[in-house]
Amino acid sequence: MTRSDRSPHGGQPPSGTARIAVDLLGGDSAPAVVVDGALRACSADPDLHLLLVGPRESADEVLGALAVGDRERVSVSVVDRTVGMGDAPMRHVRRESTVRAAAEAVYAGRADAMVSAGSSGAAVAASAHVLGRLPGVRRPGLAAHVPTAHGPVLLLDVGVTIDGTMLELVQHAVLGAAYAAAALGVADPRVGLLSIGSEPGKGDRLRRAVAVALSDTALPAGGRYIGLVEGHDVPLGGPADVVVTDGFTGNILLKGIEGATGRPALAEGARPARGAALLGVAGTVVVCHGSADGPDIASGIALAARLHRERVIPAVAGLADDLLTELSSAGGLTIRDALGERS
Amino acid sequence: MTRSDRSPHGGQPPSGTARIAVDLLGGDSAPAVVVDGALRACSADPDLHLLLVGPRESADEVLGALAVGDRERVSVSVVDRTVGMGDAPMRHVRRESTVRAAAEAVYAGRADAMVSAGSSGAAVAASAHVLGRLPGVRRPGLAAHVPTAHGPVLLLDVGVTIDGTMLELVQHAVLGAAYAAAALGVADPRVGLLSIGSEPGKGDRLRRAVAVALSDTALPAGGRYIGLVEGHDVPLGGPADVVVTDGFTGNILLKGIEGATGRPALAEGARPARGAALLGVAGTVVVCHGSADGPDIASGIALAARLHRERVIPAVAGLADDLLTELSSAGGLTIRDALGERS
Repeated sequence: MTRSDRSPHGGQPPSGTARIAVDLLGGDSAPAVVVDGALRACSADPDLHLLLVGPRESADEVLGALAVGDRERVSVSVVDRTVGMGDAPMRHVRRESTVRAAAEAVYAGRADAMVSAGSSGAAVAASAHVLGRLPGVRRPGLAAHVPTAHGPVLLLDVGVTIDGTMLELVQHAVLGAAYAAAALGVADPRVGLLSIGSEPGKGDRLRRAVAVALSDTALPAGGRYIGLVEGHDVPLGGPADVVVTDGFTGNILLKGIEGATGRPALAEGARPARGAALLGVAGTVVVCHGSADGPDIASGIALAARLHRERVIPAVAGLADDLLTELSSAGGLTIRDALGERS
Repeated sequence: MTRSDRSPHGGQPPSGTARIAVDLLGGDSAPAVVVDGALRACSADPDLHLLLVGPRESADEVLGALAVGDRERVSVSVVDRTVGMGDAPMRHVRRESTVRAAAEAVYAGRADAMVSAGSSGAAVAASAHVLGRLPGVRRPGLAAHVPTAHGPVLLLDVGVTIDGTMLELVQHAVLGAAYAAAALGVADPRVGLLSIGSEPGKGDRLRRAVAVALSDTALPAGGRYIGLVEGHDVPLGGPADVVVTDGFTGNILLKGIEGATGRPALAEGARPARGAALLGVAGTVVVCHGSADGPDIASGIALAARLHRERVIPAVAGLADDLLTELSSAGGLTIRDALGERS
């Protein structure tokens, strides 16, 4: 790994217009915090254009708070239905939901990227359905940037693959390595598998099988599998640039780190970003935490704009496509095969 | 829940001699850090007696550093073999291992409790084999105290039940409630199940099934199941006094919190204690982190002494025995049953 050039653009972020569709009804405290986040994002980035997707009155609140000259940067798509946090995601992703309308705006080319604060299940389901998955991808993964003293660690999946399978975790290792190179400027990214010890063989059945499969998997962008890493390696950084796990464990670890670092003794800057990039879908999608506040939403919008401007998602697809398809067609590999067990 | 009397002894810790068997060869940096921890524990507690189990030269190092008058508080059991961190625990728990010799000293009444810094697999296997499990207990659990602004949260299991089952998690809820009452002085402990959202139905198959089973399970000491909690609820505290999870997830969450709070910006006091109490075994056993340092070992020894002096483990057994046996005899309950699925 070299970090001499952490940004693939030599430290000069590419500018240019970025048109972001924002789900006004996503998250636990919508629309208030989303309105707040949209205003913060607009004032921070003069080349940002927003497509606000949701109720007319919430969009008007944003427009009313903007200077007249800035209002032309904001357009509105009026949608009133939402997906509640308690609903089963798939059943309720209807044409009229805001998160689906946001995805459709990206699909139709009316926006370059989308941001929603969830529910993450609904946001992922709508994105995958409307934008499509990359060829061969079984399930997309949500990748969170965790800041550490050694630079950001990419943790994925943090909420999609709740009963994770071997193929999903191996595909996420491929996607994570490609994203680390394309978005974080990490050359030859080191990919670790999250487990309960760093010695070979540690972990549950799924981890033992995935470790065998990853030892035998080509990773893009010069990436290499460096073995097992532990819970503390995510907030402390060091051994791995990318840490792969199932969405259940990843979600709990990320929220645990957020809770621990959210304590008053820690500076604001040490709080992990609450926007996660969706990997494995043919479009740029950022999903914020359901409990995101205004600054979190604004940072999610800024992440979406950066991913669009740096063409990160097309680059990930270019780096990962062949490997993902190859893994998918070898998808008959089972945990029992990997562990050498007889059925 | 009332916290008016957090200590079951009214704030006056019971004193009296506590004889602790210490595994000199447990942990990644043994014996040096164990020697250091033993010396720190001795000087902090004048009623502490140590039985040092391990190589003669390490024990002599402790004895040589003590004042002459304190040396009578330290006895030695010379054992030279150890269990390496990379070994499969069960196969290597031989009569001559230090951790097994420490457990045998407790069983024989030569010590009141034991402390080892692992490997935790070997420490748990030796303890369960030599001291025996409580009636009906399928697998013991390691319970960690996580300090929060709302008082300690008990997180279990943090490393034994790597491929956790429904019965194991439900039995750990019973043991955790009993321990919260007996060791932490929590009346009517609130027990939460760790998952990826607090709304009913969130989580993987195991969590959805355990949530159904816990809703229907009597908990000791006035304990009650309060539903699902999330990763941040462990370091922040608040909703639950006891948080139940499988040993894979619990280990990763605990180490993630340790890594996040171990950052320089946080005061030493905010670092979680690295000693975990073993629940479900008929004896007092504290297992420290493999990467424990001297102060961590000393705090593990102090915890073992306190658990002995306050008769916590017998109290846990008294509170939990009937419920554990009842659960065990209803052990035919499967995840499919709990989720109402047809096979």
